[in-house]
Amino acid sequence: MGVSSNRVEDFSSHHETSVRMSPESAEAVMVVAMPPVEIHRVCLPPSKTTFQKLRQRLSEIFFPDDPLHRFKNQSSFTKLVLALQFFFPIFHWAPTYSLALLRSDIISGLTIASLAIPQGISYAKLANLPPIIGLYSSFVPPLIYSILGSSRHLAVGPVSIASLVMGTMLNNAVSCSADPILYLKLAFTATFFAGWGFIIDFLSKATLVGFMAGAAVIVSLQQLKGLLGIAHFTTKMQIVPVLTSVFQQRHEWSWQTIVMGFSFLAFLLITRQISMRRPKLFWVSAAAPLTSVILSTILVFLLKSKLHGISIVRTTNLAYKFPDIGHLPKGLNPPSSNMLYFHGSYLAVAIKTGIITGILSLTEGIAVGRTFAALRNYQVDGNKEMMAIGFMNMAGSCSSCYVTTGSFSRSAVNYNAGAQTAVSNIIMASTVLVTLLFLMPLFHYTPNVILAAIIITAVIGLIDYEAAYKLWKVDKLDCFACLCSFFGVLFISVPLGLAIAVGVSVFKVLLHVTRPNTMVLGNIPGTQIYQNPSRYREAMKVPSFLILAVESPIYFANSTYIQERILRWVREEEEQIQANNGNALKCVILDMTAVTAIDTSGIDAICELRKMLEKRSLQFVLANPAGNVMEKLHQSKILDSFGLNGLYLAVGEAVADISSLWKAQP
Amino acid sequence: MGVSSNRVEDFSSHHETSVRMSPESAEAVMVVAMPPVEIHRVCLPPSKTTFQKLRQRLSEIFFPDDPLHRFKNQSSFTKLVLALQFFFPIFHWAPTYSLALLRSDIISGLTIASLAIPQGISYAKLANLPPIIGLYSSFVPPLIYSILGSSRHLAVGPVSIASLVMGTMLNNAVSCSADPILYLKLAFTATFFAGWGFIIDFLSKATLVGFMAGAAVIVSLQQLKGLLGIAHFTTKMQIVPVLTSVFQQRHEWSWQTIVMGFSFLAFLLITRQISMRRPKLFWVSAAAPLTSVILSTILVFLLKSKLHGISIVRTTNLAYKFPDIGHLPKGLNPPSSNMLYFHGSYLAVAIKTGIITGILSLTEGIAVGRTFAALRNYQVDGNKEMMAIGFMNMAGSCSSCYVTTGSFSRSAVNYNAGAQTAVSNIIMASTVLVTLLFLMPLFHYTPNVILAAIIITAVIGLIDYEAAYKLWKVDKLDCFACLCSFFGVLFISVPLGLAIAVGVSVFKVLLHVTRPNTMVLGNIPGTQIYQNPSRYREAMKVPSFLILAVESPIYFANSTYIQERILRWVREEEEQIQANNGNALKCVILDMTAVTAIDTSGIDAICELRKMLEKRSLQFVLANPAGNVMEKLHQSKILDSFGLNGLYLAVGEAVADISSLWKAQP
Repeated sequence: MGVSSNRVEDFSSHHETSVRMSPESAEAVMVVAMPPVEIHRVCLPPSKTTFQKLRQRLSEIFFPDDPLHRFKNQSSFTKLVLALQFFFPIFHWAPTYSLALLRSDIISGLTIASLAIPQGISYAKLANLPPIIGLYSSFVPPLIYSILGSSRHLAVGPVSIASLVMGTMLNNAVSCSADPILYLKLAFTATFFAGWGFIIDFLSKATLVGFMAGAAVIVSLQQLKGLLGIAHFTTKMQIVPVLTSVFQQRHEWSWQTIVMGFSFLAFLLITRQISMRRPKLFWVSAAAPLTSVILSTILVFLLKSKLHGISIVRTTNLAYKFPDIGHLPKGLNPPSSNMLYFHGSYLAVAIKTGIITGILSLTEGIAVGRTFAALRNYQVDGNKEMMAIGFMNMAGSCSSCYVTTGSFSRSAVNYNAGAQTAVSNIIMASTVLVTLLFLMPLFHYTPNVILAAIIITAVIGLIDYEAAYKLWKVDKLDCFACLCSFFGVLFISVPLGLAIAVGVSVFKVLLHVTRPNTMVLGNIPGTQIYQNPSRYREAMKVPSFLILAVESPIYFANSTYIQERILRWVREEEEQIQANNGNALKCVILDMTAVTAIDTSGIDAICELRKMLEKRSLQFVLANPAGNVMEKLHQSKILDSFGLNGLYLAVGEAVADISSLWKAQP
Repeated sequence: MGVSSNRVEDFSSHHETSVRMSPESAEAVMVVAMPPVEIHRVCLPPSKTTFQKLRQRLSEIFFPDDPLHRFKNQSSFTKLVLALQFFFPIFHWAPTYSLALLRSDIISGLTIASLAIPQGISYAKLANLPPIIGLYSSFVPPLIYSILGSSRHLAVGPVSIASLVMGTMLNNAVSCSADPILYLKLAFTATFFAGWGFIIDFLSKATLVGFMAGAAVIVSLQQLKGLLGIAHFTTKMQIVPVLTSVFQQRHEWSWQTIVMGFSFLAFLLITRQISMRRPKLFWVSAAAPLTSVILSTILVFLLKSKLHGISIVRTTNLAYKFPDIGHLPKGLNPPSSNMLYFHGSYLAVAIKTGIITGILSLTEGIAVGRTFAALRNYQVDGNKEMMAIGFMNMAGSCSSCYVTTGSFSRSAVNYNAGAQTAVSNIIMASTVLVTLLFLMPLFHYTPNVILAAIIITAVIGLIDYEAAYKLWKVDKLDCFACLCSFFGVLFISVPLGLAIAVGVSVFKVLLHVTRPNTMVLGNIPGTQIYQNPSRYREAMKVPSFLILAVESPIYFANSTYIQERILRWVREEEEQIQANNGNALKCVILDMTAVTAIDTSGIDAICELRKMLEKRSLQFVLANPAGNVMEKLHQSKILDSFGLNGLYLAVGEAVADISSLWKAQP
């Protein structure tokens, strides 16, 4: 059977379908009985210029969901409206907003406000910032998000993880107690740079489970300071110094604080449990923190002469003297753009802290937004969220706010309370506004211990045993990544724990690439399907052929391995044939279906492999190379050395055609 | 058509081949005319314990070529012999060694010795070490390699890249001129740790091309010091300070040195060109360096009163006073194990330098060994070479040698000169021994300028324009990695250039994983083959079906992307159907052939995708999941949610079966 022309053709030049028939193949293939097989040419993908390729690649990287597709074939006016709706999602839902929706949003907005106020104060303390910064941060950012954000259920404000990371990283550079003004400046600057955070896909779920659990344990242990009423506490974050500090300062433990703290902690944990058991009672746990704050404040106020051991927050009493703006004015967010710090020795720390907290808050915000969007079947656009959360943080840094994003716990309450649009964030911000303007003096006697109890209750939900157990069941290596980040955070440090976790995740990807799976394939009788006989017992090896599959791109990182491994398969097959007196091996077919990419090292490996097998008088044939692999094989001229009959569209066609050729030339 | 049982079965439980017939499918599939299709079950791979999996994984990572396979089913005596041959390859070839082989080896050994002596002296200067260390390093390591190494053509000794990297890295920590003894100690210590170097697969060919070219340029520019006779030269390695230094010190240029240097450089380059044009004349370029050294030494000796401008090497005059061993004795390698430096502040530098130079020399040695092994059709075992080169360097560090490995240029000469076994290395070492014992005084007047010319001629071959051009033609991103490492070495520093290059290479792998290719598939009429219609025009979309393929594992790094991209494909398909009034979309088939792995984030993505498509009343079906993917899907219980008919062995079977089900329930 002759082959008419070069089997590799440019797509543009083959308008008529070119198919060769292999009539003798039915008998030629000895074991596999199959109808005559048509032999198809392997085509190159349509040719593209480097610029076109680059453009396509970049649009896939940054705009995978093609956000501009709605703009196609529209009038200019519609385009303008669409553009407005695109950049300000508020224009999308505001025109159809109704009183019924408003009613739901008011209820949910008030509910999350009752949660946001105590959490805001608590999380600011976690970031070593004055508590009022937490309230400021629950006012401006939610307003901005309600205009720019595309999620309808995200409740915006400070969150525990970002607060913790910011507090740790900045405190390593500048002590918050020794130089509170510089610390505050760095915090605003970091918040500004957090606005430049970007979406990064290298935080795997496993990593996050471990990291968040580790952070939750660290945060909870830190709260022992407040819960036990210890005045002199370590500033370190690792588990060992914190526990040492707790027990060394036993003489500072205050029984009044302990009694009060653990009672409220029990109250908060019980309400949390009730809401978890019965989602309809979500308001029980939502109202509990504010109730605790009010109750404890009243208690301290009433018993103030008797409770010397209990330290109080003094939100309104902030003795901060800002060099530029004087005393923090009571009332609304003061401007803070003059406190941004764009030069000097701490700029690098601020940028690093900002970018890391920015990435973390973006990851959390988008994940939370998507979770609730999926429940209501709408979509949250990653790029738009990146812009919304970024802009919100940059604006926040100029109005005395620190890093904010969508909080999981508050968004869940928002969703359960029936929030319909971002108006619930506006309601929440308005409530915080009222608090800032009129209610601040009421917080004068709020005890620190209650904030510790609130933080513990909030972060305890981050410890997800079940997810960790599922990781163990499904993927041991994922579980290992999870444990690495957990123990990294506990014993080393929060940023390093995160780095270790990302490292393990990336290493896992690389490991898969460096040592990919290779296997022998056999034919399932009566079909053109080739599968691994150790998985499908009906799959039969084809005599005189060794059909191999590589399950990975062929790269510099694995080209040597694949070469050695294939030679080992060939050697083992030959030894087995010798032992069984089988038909001599004549042809090695490499199924390239799963070889989705190749680089220059890979091409060299294929080329060398062919030479080595030829020296052993074995034919080496490739089946079903993917589009870009085909292109590279073509560009590197390796196809010329493969000659005719070196490439087939499918393993079945290769077996049929080569067998028939053998029959023709005995 | 009913489905009898759970379609996912453990391999062990399905001994009889279970096949369902789908007789109506021929009519049901509207466009594609095909014979009745058998529907096969998707099987799980044979179950293994975690320990078995771990063992298999580790053996694939470290012993891909199964080095112990020869030991299977052998008697204990044969096993002993094989083990001896395994650990000491000399036992493999020594018993059959003959006089004819010895003759070839003597010729090639003498040839490479004539190259090794001048290069050894030159490369030691590149590492800022006394020239005699270069000769010592050409004596002990080749002897050890000839016993342990498995390559027959590798010529062992100092090499340019490792010398350069060691020189740069150590000189950054300790100035070689200010504290030569400490520098020498660190060099020996680094050599010791170079013995702990390991094989790393993250130096891609593209990276190495760029790195070596950059290093060659840097080294050549450094030689301007010698070639122009400049006494006060910068100690920096970057291109800018070196060139500045060259022109600022114009008053130090010595015309005698320049004339002599450029004449010998021209001589060396011409002989190099001759040997490259006619490989048979390999000895022309092989003999040229030693000839130049001898000629120039005689010249300087004869004209010593007239040539004040020419600085000389003074190998034998080394004024080093070793604190422990006194003056360097003339003669053989003095022991240096007492100079190893295992504590103190510079240990970290020594370890870092050692590991990096160790990895580089291992990479070079194994690559060179494999190149020549492939030409003669024998195999070089990576693990054995790692042991041989590692032990050779550790032993070298105790006998006044610095880092050595197989040199490409000398090995090529060795091969061309007809070397047959590692005996050529023994002959070379013996020649060096004679030189060390008796001929050292002859080098007394060797001028530095000749060493500069020898180094330039040696490294110029590392600049591989053609490889870089081919990279540009075949793979733009590989070319970018190459340029990054080239300019990184030139403008930043040698170790950082290497780090950048490795970073770019790894980033490229990750980029492929983060944004994998997804595509629509169509059926090639008359076959069960499904291909991309934009590549194969004969491939036809199947009405009511959307068949998608993902060309990558599904990981945390791409699970969101794949989810969004698939939803976009579905949306685009639906829009197109609406525009053409086609058959409504009813089923999405995901061809998992190239999805070679999945992690927990990927499983969640698949699960969520199914829920989202179900909300749009679209059926979601997986075709041909790979073994380990199947296993994870099973372990995570996601298969239960897919229910019956959620998994097929092949796209064709899925189309046929689902169509027939639709026909059965209209």
